[in-house]
Amino acid sequence: MSKTNAGNFFEDFYVGQVIRHATPRTVTSGDMALYTSLYGSRFAVQSSDAFAKGLGYAHAPIDDLLTFHIVFGKTVPDISLNAVANLGYAGGRFLAPVYPGDTLSAVSEVIGKKENSNGRTGVVYVRSTGYTSEGTEVLDYVRWVMVKKRDANSPAPEPVVPELPAALQPVALGTAVPLLDTDHWDNDLSGSKDRFADYAVGEKIDHIDGMTVEEAEHQIATRLYQNTAKVHFNQHTESESRFGRRLIYGGHVISLARALSFNGLGNAFHIAAINGGRHVSPLFAGDTVYAWSEVLDIAEIEGRRDVGAVRLRLVATKNMPCSAYPHQMPDGSYHDSVVLDFDYWALMPI
Amino acid sequence: MSKTNAGNFFEDFYVGQVIRHATPRTVTSGDMALYTSLYGSRFAVQSSDAFAKGLGYAHAPIDDLLTFHIVFGKTVPDISLNAVANLGYAGGRFLAPVYPGDTLSAVSEVIGKKENSNGRTGVVYVRSTGYTSEGTEVLDYVRWVMVKKRDANSPAPEPVVPELPAALQPVALGTAVPLLDTDHWDNDLSGSKDRFADYAVGEKIDHIDGMTVEEAEHQIATRLYQNTAKVHFNQHTESESRFGRRLIYGGHVISLARALSFNGLGNAFHIAAINGGRHVSPLFAGDTVYAWSEVLDIAEIEGRRDVGAVRLRLVATKNMPCSAYPHQMPDGSYHDSVVLDFDYWALMPI
Amino acid sequence: MSKTNAGNFFEDFYVGQVIRHATPRTVTSGDMALYTSLYGSRFAVQSSDAFAKGLGYAHAPIDDLLTFHIVFGKTVPDISLNAVANLGYAGGRFLAPVYPGDTLSAVSEVIGKKENSNGRTGVVYVRSTGYTSEGTEVLDYVRWVMVKKRDANSPAPEPVVPELPAALQPVALGTAVPLLDTDHWDNDLSGSKDRFADYAVGEKIDHIDGMTVEEAEHQIATRLYQNTAKVHFNQHTESESRFGRRLIYGGHVISLARALSFNGLGNAFHIAAINGGRHVSPLFAGDTVYAWSEVLDIAEIEGRRDVGAVRLRLVATKNMPCSAYPHQMPDGSYHDSVVLDFDYWALMPI
Repeated sequence: MSKTNAGNFFEDFYVGQVIRHATPRTVTSGDMALYTSLYGSRFAVQSSDAFAKGLGYAHAPIDDLLTFHIVFGKTVPDISLNAVANLGYAGGRFLAPVYPGDTLSAVSEVIGKKENSNGRTGVVYVRSTGYTSEGTEVLDYVRWVMVKKRDANSPAPEPVVPELPAALQPVALGTAVPLLDTDHWDNDLSGSKDRFADYAVGEKIDHIDGMTVEEAEHQIATRLYQNTAKVHFNQHTESESRFGRRLIYGGHVISLARALSFNGLGNAFHIAAINGGRHVSPLFAGDTVYAWSEVLDIAEIEGRRDVGAVRLRLVATKNMPCSAYPHQMPDGSYHDSVVLDFDYWALMPI
Repeated sequence: MSKTNAGNFFEDFYVGQVIRHATPRTVTSGDMALYTSLYGSRFAVQSSDAFAKGLGYAHAPIDDLLTFHIVFGKTVPDISLNAVANLGYAGGRFLAPVYPGDTLSAVSEVIGKKENSNGRTGVVYVRSTGYTSEGTEVLDYVRWVMVKKRDANSPAPEPVVPELPAALQPVALGTAVPLLDTDHWDNDLSGSKDRFADYAVGEKIDHIDGMTVEEAEHQIATRLYQNTAKVHFNQHTESESRFGRRLIYGGHVISLARALSFNGLGNAFHIAAINGGRHVSPLFAGDTVYAWSEVLDIAEIEGRRDVGAVRLRLVATKNMPCSAYPHQMPDGSYHDSVVLDFDYWALMPI
Repeated sequence: MSKTNAGNFFEDFYVGQVIRHATPRTVTSGDMALYTSLYGSRFAVQSSDAFAKGLGYAHAPIDDLLTFHIVFGKTVPDISLNAVANLGYAGGRFLAPVYPGDTLSAVSEVIGKKENSNGRTGVVYVRSTGYTSEGTEVLDYVRWVMVKKRDANSPAPEPVVPELPAALQPVALGTAVPLLDTDHWDNDLSGSKDRFADYAVGEKIDHIDGMTVEEAEHQIATRLYQNTAKVHFNQHTESESRFGRRLIYGGHVISLARALSFNGLGNAFHIAAINGGRHVSPLFAGDTVYAWSEVLDIAEIEGRRDVGAVRLRLVATKNMPCSAYPHQMPDGSYHDSVVLDFDYWALMPI
């Protein structure tokens, strides 16, 4: 057997399969500094030990998406090295706060598999779980990817398609947030006067600002997550691809859009759940990312009077300001500028 | 009211106004590593815990300019989001050492305001103060910015122009430096044999080296400081500007020039005060920064025998070596290559 | 005497000379995060405190090459500022683990000197040693550089050429690795099922993946190491050089190739010795680095049953995949694509 990893093909996966991923990763204040430098994120809870401690956290927790990217990165060599496309996310839950010094590992279970009608590819559904070295689960989510078959002639398996929730239930949210002493929530320091009660279903917010992405930036980010997907790093081979250039890791776009969303959602300090997400079209270096949000739902969390949940659609575009909220066309197709359609629950102080 | 911040206009400011800025920021060894990676700074006090402790510091303090940039960054969304230009600095004092783990916040007071004769813009003077979560003031400085009026027809206010010192008095310097045991100052390790007594007023030093700036570098730096000024990040809009490209944050130039100045000023380990500063012309990615210094003054600090103060003019140029000390023309205008004219007090061991 | 460092010339060195280098440097988790972000390294021992502690380390040690680059960087202002070329390395030993919080300094001894026949340059041999502020030696190695003479007419010195070992003896290896409890070595987490016994002399491994380098990346890396060599940073002067562009620090290539080698050598967790190394040709931004390895030797280490030593040739290429193992031609010259030929001992769990 080869000592090098050529990645798994569609035939290599089976429903019920459990894969323990390499490489465990201790997250540190160094990772937090890099995360800030790559996205310019300004949410006070993750930026300030003093602000976080005043509310009831042990320290400033690391950004939820940094946890997501590190856990995701670990799954790449086993799940998506031969992926044609990362099709979607669902059922993502942030279960416990992650602090500098915590060591994250990841495990995935194959929960579905279905060959495509072309016979050359198939869709694999996995639920990936990130946990600390003490065994605390910090994140789980489902994603499905289109993977190449090793051999187009291998028989199609019995299709298994998992049922996935359209959105997490509010009662499941907030386990990663200690009970907060919101008397200490200072709107001046957090950067927004608007709290849970100030948002309404249907409200749309243009986050105004734009951020241009450089090759060095997305490569530095994606390596920070130890994500090895070839398409992000190798211009020599990608110059022969249909795009002719390196693709930016989709998670980089999510983090950019989330950081931009501070302008309008400054108190939406925590991503409690990822209901769904789709990378609508690829982003390349030189493109400028803009974002807008729509409030899809508002919910109190049973038993909590400190924080409430706001369900948000976060749309990112490239090279197109979002004052007109570009999204889907009447026929359901996306506006040309849209690169990300992301549905999540954020928590806000009441 | 909009949930997004469109920034303040000239009419929104009034003399005596106090603005508490978002977002508090815990500074860590991760920020220090990034700072080193962005500028290559080599001053031993900030680079080595062992060196700093031997002298009497608790640990290696963070670079003075890193403190400056973080405090400055916080003021941007409230003070200069609609700024036409950052006109100058004065009266900057570094008041206490900042160590990893300290959380920095900032507050600004409007101390002056004067409409320009064109009726469309005005100058706003603010004194900004950075302080830790324990309430220790670590830095204050005055800057003045040209800000757009919201409405050209709004009446001009009574002009108030603060009196600003040309330079800090030596007696005010050095509070950010503990009493040093300079017997432990090792010139081999600090990288320079030249101490306080070796510099003379009028002396000019060409710092020789040059550093080319990339887009990814200044963006990473400016986001690290959570500075959101649009002109640094958005190529999509800046391509329509008079320069056609992103402007590099002026503070990035100060840090580059300061790091280059190590070659000739290796023992000038601490910036005690910013007497004045002017961004003479813009810097763009691809430009190479050079620097030279002139000793403007030399002063002992009352009551201290460990360190003395050297007042320096630090001039940075683009794409022009500094062996001829390019600066001002006979008519007072600047040489085309000059991008920064910065006047500060440095401390050196006696 | 000038206050600025113009670097040493061939005449300035003498055999037996000892040079203590500036600037001491405390290594932190911030440096580790940056190192990960620049190379995407995935070796579990350096990535995870939990994994390292389970084996017997105090914490995750910093990457061996990060130690190397920091020590190397300190020597540049004194040894190679006027170097024409960095000709080679030999006899490099990693002597003790380096942990976050350790402060590194460096000292060099000139051990050889020989003028070139052209009379304008000469070769200087130095042994550089990195040590902590507690005096623990963590690394030593020999390198030789071609240095310009200040004056072509100065007389040639008596040539002194040190005898250098072709490779370190296995018995000398492993002092930087505590006795490991390899029962806790988890192949799933480390990312490879292949251990010491699974490698054979003569075996060649194509590491498959490629990594394109950007200007911002190598500059950020090289400044992180406080390496000031001009050719890496100054496009303004390098545009006039024979290459017309900035040269990438050779150590950046070593780290890229080492990180790529994880795919095939995931359990080769520690670089115990550098037997030799040669930067065969220059790398520039935009180039894509590939790598392959050959097992040159296999050795048990006397007195240890936890780890064994594998001597590896690590070859890096530019813009050329390594499935055909490009290396030397029959006449001894290198294949055009080869940029690095590096001979080292790695340790692997038994």
